[in-house]
Amino acid sequence: MPGGEAGGRFSVPPPVFLFDLDGTLVDSVYQHVAAWNEALSQCGISLSVWRIHRRIGMSGGLFLNALQRETGLTFDAPTLAKLSALHQEGYLDRVKSVVPLPGARELLAVLLANDVLFAIATSGAHSVADAALSLLDLPASVPVVTRDLVQRAKPDPDLFLAAAEKLGADPATSFVVGDSVWDLLAAQRARALGIGLLSGGYGSEELQAAGAYRVYQDPADLLGHLEEVGVRPAR
Amino acid sequence: MPGGEAGGRFSVPPPVFLFDLDGTLVDSVYQHVAAWNEALSQCGISLSVWRIHRRIGMSGGLFLNALQRETGLTFDAPTLAKLSALHQEGYLDRVKSVVPLPGARELLAVLLANDVLFAIATSGAHSVADAALSLLDLPASVPVVTRDLVQRAKPDPDLFLAAAEKLGADPATSFVVGDSVWDLLAAQRARALGIGLLSGGYGSEELQAAGAYRVYQDPADLLGHLEEVGVRPAR
Repeated sequence: MPGGEAGGRFSVPPPVFLFDLDGTLVDSVYQHVAAWNEALSQCGISLSVWRIHRRIGMSGGLFLNALQRETGLTFDAPTLAKLSALHQEGYLDRVKSVVPLPGARELLAVLLANDVLFAIATSGAHSVADAALSLLDLPASVPVVTRDLVQRAKPDPDLFLAAAEKLGADPATSFVVGDSVWDLLAAQRARALGIGLLSGGYGSEELQAAGAYRVYQDPADLLGHLEEVGVRPAR
Repeated sequence: MPGGEAGGRFSVPPPVFLFDLDGTLVDSVYQHVAAWNEALSQCGISLSVWRIHRRIGMSGGLFLNALQRETGLTFDAPTLAKLSALHQEGYLDRVKSVVPLPGARELLAVLLANDVLFAIATSGAHSVADAALSLLDLPASVPVVTRDLVQRAKPDPDLFLAAAEKLGADPATSFVVGDSVWDLLAAQRARALGIGLLSGGYGSEELQAAGAYRVYQDPADLLGHLEEVGVRPAR
């Protein structure tokens, strides 16, 4: 089988990583949940908090579509705009309690030191993502794709496709790293391999059922198993 | 097989239900998570929020033991007391946003109308549980067992054993209804059948792996499937 040999016709290029942000690199999912809960409640809309939690990581627009289907209500454009604004305001009120997840900065530093390419792809708008990104001390060379830069957010693959393109990498030989089912579905649709992290509060089996190649607890746990995803740190 | 016949030597008595409170009947898990996160942060202790979430439903004491093991830190008695007090204070600050879960009041009303016995068994102290209980409009005849009334909280079975005893029921022929892995482990140790609800934010497979006989979304979903747990509502 000559095609299976290293360097042959079907050799695999060095791994490239496309990271989600909330719940994957920074510990911000529960603040987003609380902000959505408060926004919905202020608009007189009743939705159980666990259902909000399970929608985090989708785009805000898809979240609101799903919400209308689940509640059977229809919201007019001003209400939808108000919900989005209240969520953003409520999240920014809580953003001072957001910290990097264990191992996030160390993991990115090891990738940088070993010339492993990576990018960030988040369903959040730039205005919301900025505070979280500032916690990670990323060099300006790391591409960041936010919601406002693509037409469709997760579980559509657009964010990860755009992130791979910015790296000059093929999505089909990249790893997508995310904490939510939506990341992993988007990974499959981009033909990437998905790595699930438990740090957003989903259960391991939910991430596996969404197609995760591998599931780790958090960035520190992924860092401890880098050889399972094709990285052999020299430094 | 005479023993298998209804009314024979091994007949099964009418079902009795032992309900957890937070995340099972009232939508309060995420407020508890936020309160613990704030308390830990105020004491300078760093723990990812998803790890807090996965410990909710244990007794506060066991939670703090697990926390010491996970962080490798040792807390003195005043710090432990301060953490508990800060959690209680932070939760009570948020309690106005706590509402009954969909179907909770309706489910309990159907059980009452059909003379199906049930009790509440919560890992919370009476002082914290009172606000949640008041949302359910329970008649005084419904036994409530709180943390302060037993020696060991979940995942030990004591709370459910005490609740069954107050009903004059055998734990081994009761159903325990809970949202957390700790409820379901305690159910197994009490030899009860466990019913898992997703409304606390665990994944379905986590609850199944902890031994759930059946998993439903929330009290409304359980109410829609009462015949699966031996209740045939006449009213």
